[in-house]
Amino acid sequence: MKNICILGSTGSIGTNTLDIIRQHPDKFRAQTIVTNTNTELLANQIKNYQPDYAVIYDKSAYEQFMQNYKQSKTKIMFGYEGLISSIDDEKPDVFVNAFVGFAGLIPTIHAIKSKINIALANKETLVVAGSLIMNLAKQMNVGIIPIDSEHSAIWQCLVGEDHNRIRRLILTASGGPFRTRSKEELKKVTPEEALKHPNWIMGPKITIDSATLMNKGLEVIEAFWLYHVSHTDIEVVIHPQSIIHSMVEFEDKSIKAQLGVPDMRIPIQYALDFPNRHLLDTSPMDFVKFASLTFEQPDLEKFPCLNLAYEALRLGKTYTTVLNAANEMAVAAFLNRELRYADIAKVIIDQLDDHVPQEDDNFESLLEVDNETRIKTIEVINNKYKN
Amino acid sequence: MKNICILGSTGSIGTNTLDIIRQHPDKFRAQTIVTNTNTELLANQIKNYQPDYAVIYDKSAYEQFMQNYKQSKTKIMFGYEGLISSIDDEKPDVFVNAFVGFAGLIPTIHAIKSKINIALANKETLVVAGSLIMNLAKQMNVGIIPIDSEHSAIWQCLVGEDHNRIRRLILTASGGPFRTRSKEELKKVTPEEALKHPNWIMGPKITIDSATLMNKGLEVIEAFWLYHVSHTDIEVVIHPQSIIHSMVEFEDKSIKAQLGVPDMRIPIQYALDFPNRHLLDTSPMDFVKFASLTFEQPDLEKFPCLNLAYEALRLGKTYTTVLNAANEMAVAAFLNRELRYADIAKVIIDQLDDHVPQEDDNFESLLEVDNETRIKTIEVINNKYKN
Repeated sequence: MKNICILGSTGSIGTNTLDIIRQHPDKFRAQTIVTNTNTELLANQIKNYQPDYAVIYDKSAYEQFMQNYKQSKTKIMFGYEGLISSIDDEKPDVFVNAFVGFAGLIPTIHAIKSKINIALANKETLVVAGSLIMNLAKQMNVGIIPIDSEHSAIWQCLVGEDHNRIRRLILTASGGPFRTRSKEELKKVTPEEALKHPNWIMGPKITIDSATLMNKGLEVIEAFWLYHVSHTDIEVVIHPQSIIHSMVEFEDKSIKAQLGVPDMRIPIQYALDFPNRHLLDTSPMDFVKFASLTFEQPDLEKFPCLNLAYEALRLGKTYTTVLNAANEMAVAAFLNRELRYADIAKVIIDQLDDHVPQEDDNFESLLEVDNETRIKTIEVINNKYKN
Repeated sequence: MKNICILGSTGSIGTNTLDIIRQHPDKFRAQTIVTNTNTELLANQIKNYQPDYAVIYDKSAYEQFMQNYKQSKTKIMFGYEGLISSIDDEKPDVFVNAFVGFAGLIPTIHAIKSKINIALANKETLVVAGSLIMNLAKQMNVGIIPIDSEHSAIWQCLVGEDHNRIRRLILTASGGPFRTRSKEELKKVTPEEALKHPNWIMGPKITIDSATLMNKGLEVIEAFWLYHVSHTDIEVVIHPQSIIHSMVEFEDKSIKAQLGVPDMRIPIQYALDFPNRHLLDTSPMDFVKFASLTFEQPDLEKFPCLNLAYEALRLGKTYTTVLNAANEMAVAAFLNRELRYADIAKVIIDQLDDHVPQEDDNFESLLEVDNETRIKTIEVINNKYKN
């Protein structure tokens, strides 16, 4: 029986994780569930899964929830401190990091230091602090198992293989909702259009990142940290059907791919109990239904964010931290209608150009770079780009 | 350094094996090369690879060759006995079985008994004697590593995985040269048309088998023996581009596939030094060039041979031996213009219907069934189907 802590239990990855726990009550148990503000769904999850702890990150959401909460076996905790004390009380076996953005990073560091294996859905953890996290995980002998469908695919393809024999990683990308639009048309897109992802149902931040291909760029950076492959050996290929989740080519030019219908429960379940596989109640792939799988090269002129990620990775040090912070701020501004879609990349370029790189192996300097970049990005958006 | 014995060095698999040896003189050495009749190419191979032994199976080809052979470090041997004595003299590390048809079986049994790992390209070995071979290999602790691109693909996908978690094997099939023809058109096809395989360059017997889909049927039977999966869990899907070489679906509905441009050197090299991968001078897969991978269900009415293989496998015992022998005779008769393409399946059905099954775990009864079936098949072709 594996005890699971789910950071972000009310989001898309979190609810899918709970569904797996529901399917395998003999194998997994929800020990701690964590939400930022969605206490309505959290209350339901407490009722259905009876975890030992439920943590609410947002102060007013916590206070409001406590007014009506009837005592049960589940202890309700508040914020980061509440989460940490729940982890320290009853060390979970797996820590699922499914928070969005920078917020997932700090508790993940605590979990690694507590020798808890990480099932990682939060992209920023490795994008912002890849060097720090991977060194710490190595030192503590903790596994960082990816949940992202692309990295899970690569992980699955590498089982039993010698990593030194990798020739290239091939990350597939759906191309997002704007794959077939012209550069001209892209200037006018709205948040509503960008939020319509063709294949996956995800949160708003990651959906916008999918539309700009920054999501794929962040995945290139993650792949670099997870698989120790040079950025020149990580390729992105557009595959609109999202059936092949990613591939590995070895030195002998043999390629292994992992595929299936888009269902995040497959990589989540794989990460929860790697290397074991278990039954999963989901649709099998029907090759007659998906009669054609297509591939094309990404159009880097239309989607400059992908190139920015490669560039930040090539520059190294704290450049990827800057990329991530500037992107988070720009996406938030776009969702708030304060920034045009076409200016997201420009905002990030400004920050990368301005950056004086720091060493990326201590948390304080990463935090400082992150904070500074956010403040500067907001200023730049307000002064230069505001709608 | 691995010493290789190549049964069938002058055929398609054999020449590709030698090319790998040429690319890796530090890893592989041609110790024994064996041909049936192609002494002209054999002479070249002796010159280029300087093996310890060269074996000629055909008596008149051997005698003619010896008249002009100038003494060199390579000893020339004759026939099965010559091969066996070369194996016993200098035990090779890997025995590549790339003979066509039943002839590959007997020396393979000898190699397994001599504890030599088998790189298996000869389909009939497992189709005719799967039970015998797999039991013997288990007993002698010998690896049977497939060279067929489909089974190599599955083998590669299963590295590091628990075989008990397999849900189904998905064998891909190009569909052969007649995929798009109507049942009516198929009645009139000639050997010349059947010999034009769209993707792979192979010998005539296997090329005809590809046209009838019997080749895929034989692979279903091989997969049964190699992977211990029920015949109901082995599927065939038509994939005309031959890029995805085959797939494995696990219990969690995750699918792993192995793919690449069609080049037999990839699976051959993999089999020669499993589980190690090495550089290989071949073209990498270009996803923009192969922009679309398509899938369709096999048309079992148009290609009844595939169903016959499933049926023989379901019936078990010596039924697959009968299937193979009847098919070999029917294909030979078709190539000799003594049998119509559309009658190949009928000839096999006659033999399966007539067969009184024997136990499949001793070589003598397999040989008897094989011989009897061949004689009966020729009779039936002459009396009932002859053009």
